[in-house]
Formats: sequence, C-alpha cells, structure tokens
Amino acid sequence: MSADRAEVRCLFISEKELIMTKSRCFLFVALIFCTALTSVSLRADEGMWLFENPPTQQVKAAYDFALTEEWLEHVRLASCRVARRGSASFISPNGLILTNHHVAAHDLHALSTPEDNLLEKGFYAEKLEDERKCPGLEIFVLEKIEDVTEIVSAAKEADSIKTGTRSNAFIAQLEQKKANETGLRCEVITLYQGGAYHLYCYKVYTDVRLVWAPEESIAAFGGDPDNYEFPRYCLDAAMFRAYENGKPAKIEHYLKWGTGGVKDGELVFVSGHPGTTNRAFTKEHLEFLRDVHFPWLLQKLFRREVLYSAYGNRSLENQRRIADDLGSVQNYRKRAIGQLDGLQTPTLWEGKLSASDENASDAVKNNADAIAEACQEMGEIDDGFSTYLVHDLLEKGEAFNSQTFRYARTLVRLAEESQKPNEERLPEYRDGNLAALKAALLSDTSIYEDVEVLKLTDSLTMLQEVGQGTAWNACIEEGFLPSDMSPKTIAQYFIVHSKLRDVAERKRLMDGGAEAIENSEDPMIVFALSIDEQSRDIRQMYDEIFTAFTTAAYTELARQRFTEQGTDVYPDATLTLRLSHGKVQGYTEDDDTEIEPVTNIAGMFERAASHKNREPFDPPQSWKDGKAALDENCAFNLVSTNDIIGGNSGSPLINTKGELVGLVFDGNIYSLSNNFVYSEEQSRCVSVHADVVLEALTKIYKAERIVKELGVTATQQQ
Amino acid sequence: MSADRAEVRCLFISEKELIMTKSRCFLFVALIFCTALTSVSLRADEGMWLFENPPTQQVKAAYDFALTEEWLEHVRLASCRVARRGSASFISPNGLILTNHHVAAHDLHALSTPEDNLLEKGFYAEKLEDERKCPGLEIFVLEKIEDVTEIVSAAKEADSIKTGTRSNAFIAQLEQKKANETGLRCEVITLYQGGAYHLYCYKVYTDVRLVWAPEESIAAFGGDPDNYEFPRYCLDAAMFRAYENGKPAKIEHYLKWGTGGVKDGELVFVSGHPGTTNRAFTKEHLEFLRDVHFPWLLQKLFRREVLYSAYGNRSLENQRRIADDLGSVQNYRKRAIGQLDGLQTPTLWEGKLSASDENASDAVKNNADAIAEACQEMGEIDDGFSTYLVHDLLEKGEAFNSQTFRYARTLVRLAEESQKPNEERLPEYRDGNLAALKAALLSDTSIYEDVEVLKLTDSLTMLQEVGQGTAWNACIEEGFLPSDMSPKTIAQYFIVHSKLRDVAERKRLMDGGAEAIENSEDPMIVFALSIDEQSRDIRQMYDEIFTAFTTAAYTELARQRFTEQGTDVYPDATLTLRLSHGKVQGYTEDDDTEIEPVTNIAGMFERAASHKNREPFDPPQSWKDGKAALDENCAFNLVSTNDIIGGNSGSPLINTKGELVGLVFDGNIYSLSNNFVYSEEQSRCVSVHADVVLEALTKIYKAERIVKELGVTATQQQ
Repeated sequence: MSADRAEVRCLFISEKELIMTKSRCFLFVALIFCTALTSVSLRADEGMWLFENPPTQQVKAAYDFALTEEWLEHVRLASCRVARRGSASFISPNGLILTNHHVAAHDLHALSTPEDNLLEKGFYAEKLEDERKCPGLEIFVLEKIEDVTEIVSAAKEADSIKTGTRSNAFIAQLEQKKANETGLRCEVITLYQGGAYHLYCYKVYTDVRLVWAPEESIAAFGGDPDNYEFPRYCLDAAMFRAYENGKPAKIEHYLKWGTGGVKDGELVFVSGHPGTTNRAFTKEHLEFLRDVHFPWLLQKLFRREVLYSAYGNRSLENQRRIADDLGSVQNYRKRAIGQLDGLQTPTLWEGKLSASDENASDAVKNNADAIAEACQEMGEIDDGFSTYLVHDLLEKGEAFNSQTFRYARTLVRLAEESQKPNEERLPEYRDGNLAALKAALLSDTSIYEDVEVLKLTDSLTMLQEVGQGTAWNACIEEGFLPSDMSPKTIAQYFIVHSKLRDVAERKRLMDGGAEAIENSEDPMIVFALSIDEQSRDIRQMYDEIFTAFTTAAYTELARQRFTEQGTDVYPDATLTLRLSHGKVQGYTEDDDTEIEPVTNIAGMFERAASHKNREPFDPPQSWKDGKAALDENCAFNLVSTNDIIGGNSGSPLINTKGELVGLVFDGNIYSLSNNFVYSEEQSRCVSVHADVVLEALTKIYKAERIVKELGVTATQQQ
Repeated sequence: MSADRAEVRCLFISEKELIMTKSRCFLFVALIFCTALTSVSLRADEGMWLFENPPTQQVKAAYDFALTEEWLEHVRLASCRVARRGSASFISPNGLILTNHHVAAHDLHALSTPEDNLLEKGFYAEKLEDERKCPGLEIFVLEKIEDVTEIVSAAKEADSIKTGTRSNAFIAQLEQKKANETGLRCEVITLYQGGAYHLYCYKVYTDVRLVWAPEESIAAFGGDPDNYEFPRYCLDAAMFRAYENGKPAKIEHYLKWGTGGVKDGELVFVSGHPGTTNRAFTKEHLEFLRDVHFPWLLQKLFRREVLYSAYGNRSLENQRRIADDLGSVQNYRKRAIGQLDGLQTPTLWEGKLSASDENASDAVKNNADAIAEACQEMGEIDDGFSTYLVHDLLEKGEAFNSQTFRYARTLVRLAEESQKPNEERLPEYRDGNLAALKAALLSDTSIYEDVEVLKLTDSLTMLQEVGQGTAWNACIEEGFLPSDMSPKTIAQYFIVHSKLRDVAERKRLMDGGAEAIENSEDPMIVFALSIDEQSRDIRQMYDEIFTAFTTAAYTELARQRFTEQGTDVYPDATLTLRLSHGKVQGYTEDDDTEIEPVTNIAGMFERAASHKNREPFDPPQSWKDGKAALDENCAFNLVSTNDIIGGNSGSPLINTKGELVGLVFDGNIYSLSNNFVYSEEQSRCVSVHADVVLEALTKIYKAERIVKELGVTATQQQ
C-alpha cells in the first residue's frame, strides 16, 4: 500500500485535503459550503466547539465537570495540526508528537526506498540522532486567538460583493501585521459563515523528524473490510519530534500519558481539526444530495470498484498498478453509502429548515426557497439529463476519466487562461496557484496505458448510457466524438495515440502556450480543445445557479441565525482547532448486536486466526514473534460518543485530568452522517487505546528510550 | 465453489436454464423472444445450422469440403444433450460420454458429502463397477426429424390466437402419437418463429453414471478473472457413461478421439445445443437494450458485486455464505458488459432492420414500427420512471431482492391463483408447473438472515434512489412501506421478523391457502400482499404492450422473411441440435495484442507462478506432483471461429474426419454479442484441446482403463 492509498484509507484525512491531492473525480459538491446554521437544541454530546467558546455549560450539565481556563489552555497548546494531513498532539517536554500512522504515511513513503520500505517494515530510531528529518512537514500550534469580527465585517461591507479584492487585501494586511508583531503565522478564520472572524496565530515547527512508526500491516490491520467498522484492532499510531535550532523543541504544554485506562461512560475530550461539516443544509438541499448527488456518485463508484477489482484480479502486476485507485474508490464508496444511509434515515431530518417551514420568518423562508430552487434547477431532468449531470460529466470530466484527459484539459486551459489578466482567470489558473499546477503537470508519477484505457472506456461507456444515450448523442452531433467507433475503440485510440503520458511532451506543450496547443495533433489535446467552450459554459451556469446562489443564501441564513443565537451554537467545522466532549460508550448495531466499547490484543489475534492470517488480516512478523510476551487483555481500540469528522485523524483523546488516553483514527459507519447531523445513538469516534501503544512500544518495538521519555512503564498501566 | 456457482460460471450453460434455476433477479428481457429474422448476407463462418438443412454450400465455398449425408448422420447421432445442463457427445462404443466439468457440476455436487467433496477432489472410477449413478440425469440423442410444418400451421390457423389451447392440444397429440410409434421422446420444435415446425424424436438414456471428473481447481483454473478470456488453461471436462439394462449402452455412432491435433486455419465443426439468439432484433429494439435495459441491469449488477464482495471480505464465513451469489453476479456482469460493448459497436448495426428503413416493404415497416413503438413506450420516462423500470422493480421484485420476498410473493400468489380455473391462472401457477413450484417452496437450502438483510437493504436503497425518489415516494404514499424508517431499518425489520426462512412455516402457509395468507402477520407476507395488485397491473401492462406486441410483430416479420428466403438462412437458436462450422484461428485484441490460437501446459504453470499460485490460479496437488511427467508442449485450450452461444457448453469440436479434437466450454469476451450478431473478427469459441484431456487422463489420473477404451495412447498424440 503506497502512501497515497494509505492517506485515503481512513475517514480522518480531511476531505478538503483529499480534494486537493486526489483527482477531481470525486469532488463532493456539498463540501464547497461551510455554513453555520444549526438548530440550537443540541444533543448532549453534540458539537465541535471553539476553544474560545467552549461547551462549558453542556459539560457541566451532562457530566458535572468544570472546564477551567487553565485546562483549556493546556489542552489547546498541547494540540497541533500536521499541515495538509490531520491532527496531532505533544506528548513529552522534548517535542515528541503523537499522530496516526495514516497521517504519517506520506512522510513514511517519502523516506522509503524500494530496498527500505518504511510503510512495510516500520521504523524506530534507537537513538536521538537516528531520528529522520521529514522534508516539508510542518506542525502548527494555535498560540493566540483574537476576535476581529468588527474590523473585518466593516471592511467587507465597504467592499464590493463581486470581487472581494479589497477586503481580501485588508485581511492579508491584517494577517501580515499580526505576524510581524508576534513572529507567529497568522490567519483570519471565517466562522458562522461570516457571523464572526477570528485571527488565529500559530507557532510553526518546520524541522520535524520521524521517531517511530509500526508496520502498516498492524497500523491498518483489517484494511478496507474493517474500515469504518468496529470492533477494530489498528495500531494506527506514529511519532514525530519537533526540533528547534537542530535540537528537540522544549515544550511547556504536552499531554501526560494516561496509564489508568478508561472506564465505560467516562467523560473524554477530542481536541483536533475537523475539516468540513454541512449541518446547516436545508431539507431541500439534503433531498438533492439524497436523490441526485449520492445515487449518481455511488453509481460511478460501484462500476469503478467492480472494473478496477476485475482488472486487478487478472495479474499481480495489474493489482499493483490499480491498488491506489481501487483503495481510494473503496474508501469513497464506503463513505458515500454511510452518508446516504444517514440521508435516508428520517430522524436525520428533525430540526432541518425547509422552504415550507411555517414557523420560519419570511426572510429565512426566502433564503430557504432560493436554495430549494437552485437544487431543483440543478437536478431537474430535461431531455434525459440534468444540469448537475452535464456539469459532472463535462466540466468535472467524469465522462473522460483518465489522467491523460486531465492533463489535456489543464494544458488547454493553461494556454488560454495565461493570456488573460490574473483576476479574470478561472481561480485555479491564478498566479497564486500556478506553481503548484505546473508542478503537478510535470509530475513523473507513472501512468499506465492499460489502466488509462480501462478508465476511459468505462467512463465513455457510462456517457453513452446516461439519459438513454442523449449525452452521447449530443457529443456525436457536436462532433466531439467519432460516430463510427465504440467507446472502447475511442478510448483505445485516444490513449494509445496520445503522447501526454510523456513528461517532456507535457513540458513542451506547457512552455509552448496557445500556439503549441493549437498546432498539436495529439488526439486528447484536440478533444479537450473541442469540448472546452461547452464545458466552460456549463461551469458558468453551475457556478451561477448553484454555487453563488446557495452560498449567498446560506450566508444570509447563517447571519440571521447568528444574530439570534450568537455563540450558543458551535460553528460548522473549518479545519481549525475544536474541542468535542463525549463518553466512552458501546452501541447497538442495526442487527441488535451489542458492541462493547473496548477491544483487546487477544481479539486482534483471534480476528487474524479467523481469517487464516490472510491479508489484510495478517499481523506483522514482529507481533507473531512477540505474541507470548504481550498482555492479551491489554486494551487495543475503543469507541466514544465524541462529535468528529474528517480532519480529526490523529487527535488526542483526553481524560478530565488532561491525560492522553487514546488517539482518534476513524469513525464508525454511523458517524459518516456527522457531515449533516450528529446522533449519539450509534455514531462513534474510534481511537487507538493508549495502553496498546505503550504495550507495543515496550514489548514489540523495544523502544525503551521513548517509553522512558513518556514517563511511564508498561507495568504501570496494569 | 458449490455446484450452483460452478453452473453459472461459464457462458455455456444455457441462459434459458439459468432463468429457470436462478433467482428472478436477472431475467433478461431479451431472452423471451426467439425470432428468426436474419439478413441473408451471411459471414463465411456464420450460422447455427439445422442438421436437416446444413451449411453445405457455405462449407464447400469457403473450405472446399463436402458435407456428406453420412458424415452429418454420424455426427448428429454421436451428439447428445444433457437435459437442463448443456451439450455432450459419445466417445466410445460402450456409451462413454464427454462433456464439461461445469455441465457435470450439478451431479458432482449431488454425489458429494461434506467428507468427500467430488468438486474439490475430483473423481475417477478405477473399475467399471465403481462408476456412480447420477439420479435424475438424462441424456438425449436426436434420432429422427420430420417436417410437420403443414399440419401444425393448419391447426394453428384453425385455432384462436388468444388461447392456443386447441393447437397446443393438437401438438401434444402429435408428439404422443409419434412417441408411441417410435418408442422415442418426441417434441415439436418451432423454427423461424413459426415459419416451420419440425418434429424431433430423441432416444433418452436415463441410467447415466459418473466415470471421471478432474478437480475443480484445474477445470475452472483462473476462475472469474479468466472467465470469457483467452489465453486460457481449463481442463473443463468430465465423463459419464450411458447404461441400458444395467450395462454400458452399445453405441454405433461415437466420435473417435482425434490424436493428430489441429492446425492453424483448419476447418472444425461444433455440434451442440445453442440456447437462444436474438439476431432478428430491429435497430430500435437493440437501441432499447443498449440505452435502457443494459445500463439498468449493469447498475444493479455493479452495486451487488461491490456489496457482496465487501460483505464476503469481512470474514471467511461471510465469504462462504455469499460465494454463490457473488459468482453468479460476476458472471452476469461480465456477460452484460460484453453484450453492451457489442451493442455500442457501430458495426453491429449493419444489416439490422429499422422502422425508418427506406428499402423495406410497407408490411415489414409496419411491424418494425410496432416494435419501435413498444420499445419507446417501455423506456419512456414519465415522472422519474419508465414502465420498464417499474415492471423490473415491482413485478420482477428487484426492489425487494431477497429469498424471503420471493417466497412471500409465491405463497401469496399461489393462494390466489389456486382458486382460479387452470387456464385463467398466471402461467407459472398452472397445473403443469405446480409440482416444481411447490418443491422449490419447500427446498431446504440455507437462507442466511444477514445476507437477506444485506440484499434487501441494498435493493430498497436502490428503490429510494430511483427516479429521484419518486418510486420510493409512491411506495410510501400507497402505504406499502413505512414512512418513518430508512431502507436499512425496514429491511432489518422485515427479515428479522419474517418466519419464511423456516420450511415448516412455508409449508403451513402453502397448505393453508388463502385463509392462512390473509391471517398471516408475517411482515413479508403482509407486504407482498399489499403490493400484489399494483404489481399484477404492471405485469399485465408490460405483457400487453411489450411481450405480446413485439412477439406478434416479430412472428409476422419472420414469416415475411421466411417466405422470401426459406431455409437459405438459419433459424435463431432454440436449444436444439445445430451445426456450426469455423476454423482454428487466433485474433487481435483491442489493444493490438496478437492472440495465438492454442495454449499449452507450460503456459498454465507459468500463469499459476505469475500469480504465486494464489486462488483461483492454484492448480491441484495432483498436477503439481505430476508436473515432471507431463509434456509441457501439450496443447491445452484453443480458439476457433465457430458461431456458438449459451447451451453449447460440452459440445464436441470435430475435424473433417469426424474425429473429436476438442470440447467447447466457453466463448471469449467478444463472442458475447453473438446474441445479436456474429462477427468473425474477434468473436471466438473456446475449447479444451483433446490432447490435454488424454495427457491428463494418462499421466495425472492414471485412467488406463479409459484411455484404452478411447482406442488411443498418450504417446500416439505426439
């Protein structure tokens, strides 16, 4: 399993990040909105709270525990963000950091060589000087928070709605000024969809080194079959160390290792960086997702999973080539099914605003109406297909699913957009994004001809199927596709005859600009060029009808609600630091199976044996060899009711004493609808128990140096 | 792999049979028509010819070989049909019969015990007395053919179109009379959609015993990944023996074992029982299949394959429970993709009749028009769904996919239909079908609660997705489904609270008739009852608009064409004996790979090694142990251009000398569109080479007795 695959294996890589790093195939339309409209009647353990507005009352009421300023500050400063990957925490005064193995996977991959694969073999630095520097890895700690709502709101109001240029410049200046003052990295955060603006100042560690990571076969034990499931047995943990001036950073606020375990019903906190939630979505918007978006997304995912699996089963080499794509599709599929199940559950709809809501004010109704209309217009089927569908097929390129097409599209647009003034370009071609975009174009990642043909054949076949062939017929009539060839033959022709798999050719076209593109006879370039105008048209229509319209309506709704309720409610997740409270608690499966909240080491070995130790249920040799030494009753994974979502990966699970008792790495299948609604009944946060980390460090990895640094011993935990 | 699964693994179990034995989920609408309208400009190797009207001219013209009466009679009488399973041939004067392992799988399964699994371990009767009787197995040989067109046509014309009762009685009498005369089993065959009627008289062997079968791991080497593919390495062969009066039957016409191998380009024949083709379908009907039927079928297959796989991967027990369903879905999926690919290939459309055909006569046009209109009406989307879709969801029960629902539906209808006079009942509840229907109701096949919940959850979820929720909303509004539960919760409730998994309860309801059904509180019975009226309505609409209408139009078209062309063309396949000619020939894959026509034993071991001998690429121990003794250059499987389809499984591949040189067991992926059109370019028939059977019998299975009976030795073949 490569880093890419591991990255997407779990829920808790932020969805936002996925979109940035993965292909555009699975852009989840719902994620583009970060809204704040939330019903004020909250469930006891609901909420991803701001540290500057913590759930003090809620925790007091439900658990009779007082969240003190001191406790909050300590936890906030011990928490950190692994840039572009997830969450983490400090666990020693010498800069030791704990996060998930799957959050560290990118770095493990980067440090690996074909001969020395750290994902497969794991890593442990026996001595301090063996710790290995991870290029580009940055760790953020939220040091200061300032409310800048008034001045930002004033600047916004003074600015034109259309460009936002001046208020953006204002924000940039504000951030820079604060950065100069503090020496920290500063960022203005939009909360409550513009109801509030807070300035967050981060201390950033840029010298971060790898200390320990177990083998992936125990970190991701159970693989895709166990993903989002419980009982679970994953040692999804890894350790880094922050350095300053070439020496381990001195850390005042770190989490002590909790060795007392956790009790059933015990109050626990998660301090981390949830990515995106959409709890303000209206009834009609959720219906659109349930009836239009998810069915179509799942149709695509189902067919791809089947075809990728079938291709992979033909040979071991095929299996290797398709592994990342297949893993990614399986992860998305599982998540989409979980989310759709939530949307199909009537209880999810309680308290959701509807355009037909009789109790809502006219102003609120108007906005809900605007959203309902936009959804209606997107999903309405006319002559076989909807605007939503055409946008997905044409502009998102889902009908031409291949890296070759994506390169062609980017090259064609880059040539055209480069000729325009910066502010008139499509956002992804503006100056600030160009370096990354060009680097991606020249990436030397392997592209396999047969995989490209497989993907393009399937997506063109899908295009022909859509709306009883109308989409396909349109492409033929417009002359985009030849009329005398089957999807398979077209795919074969386009891929085999395209030279875009060659980095040098992409560079030539990139450097050659519009002239090179116009003169190119590469069939994929010619094709991408031919559909570009129509594709841009549908994008504009989509952005105008849907994105701009609904965003404006949600902003308005959020402001109306914020005026009423202020900070009595928590804002939707924004990939910034939040605190969630909850309790250690099992749950009842749909089939009435009672799920105990904590698993143990014996359970892992039993699960492996029941699968005859076949992958992905085959623990590493080190665990087989060390089995006798291990305490089989030692706790492995646990579930709790904390309200979490993608981005929370690597967050510490903390007890009332402020000690680390676990490490969040996943949510169960029921937690997938956390995107839209939180429910305590079955939705659970899944963590690695602190005990198993200590047991493994001591008995399997003989990491005495680290155990000593944690200030505990394995025997202490008994 | 159980018998059920093995049965559906390959193309060449007749599709008709599949429909009868498998769940109704995948009823392929196209199969209900057996039509004859075929363009007279045939490709050189095209055609599934009647023995009474053989391709003498075609073979002479293309291969300069004269098909003599003698040759034809010999081949016809050496060919046989394995009732309800496939084709076969006699290969010794003592009643020895060769067919496919997958054709024999049902009997191997029936003869197995948990301790002695013949599918897994294979079987060889060292002595004659060790041969094991297969209960219920019947072998048919076509002894006599008589043209009864005139008298049957006259009886048909004299009868009313609506019931056909009298002409059916006339046919039954005719068959009985002939049976009494000849002592054979007689059957009137409808050819050219009523253009001709032939009376076929079969000698039937009812005492049939198992002689030899290899292990399934070599018979089905490569499993699903290699299904419909080539190069291939399957010893898909088994031998039975026909007995008469407790002794081996004396057989005059049998195929001598061909030991000279085959040459590239050599003329070869297939004599077997192709099930169904639809080569007369009009352009508009094929468009309906391409744009409506197959996309929807594949949508269902894709989602099921993903969910069944994911369920299976959770534990070995799950894997065992879902294996048959998964194997079946994978087989259907592969076939549907192949057929759709054919339909999406423009060359398929050449020569197909269209309603807008300018050269067609008015009479022909009118019928083509009627078909086009029926298809249009079926597929037209109104308020989110089409008649075709509602029929599939409601009447075929695809929205309630579970054995529990199928039992409930049958019990509910049986109670109602039993109260009607025989001729007014739905066909499947008429007297002639009742015994089999009741036996199926009381079958003690295991039904797993969790598998039922999985299937029902998925299909109810699909119902909610369909047409943006309109189908689901309709079910809620009509009160068929509760409004406050998610598909998952409903599925859970229906399955867990239904007692229909218990045979005794089904018997009680079956015996209790209408009263028992009305008083039942079983949620699935209540549900099946609630939707029955609407379900019957849509069935009636479907049957009237589509089935009756198109059948009548095709019959008319076929008659018009038969009047013009007579027997210059071959009739569509009807599961009766046909002769196909062709040549041994490789082909070029879409990706330009050249495929050689013959594989060898070395290739099998190489393919196993390249998969690290992982299932399904792990040959049995007997082959590993015997490897050194084997001639690695010995031919294994081969491809030829013969025109074949489902039902041809087990057919002999015969050279011009009338010797058996191979055993048909599959078609390649391109042959899947043989249903609609035959093409020589890539479509290939796949056979086990005679050489590998002999080599394996001699060196692996030490079957000296059999080799001697075949009149050859392994060394002779070199």
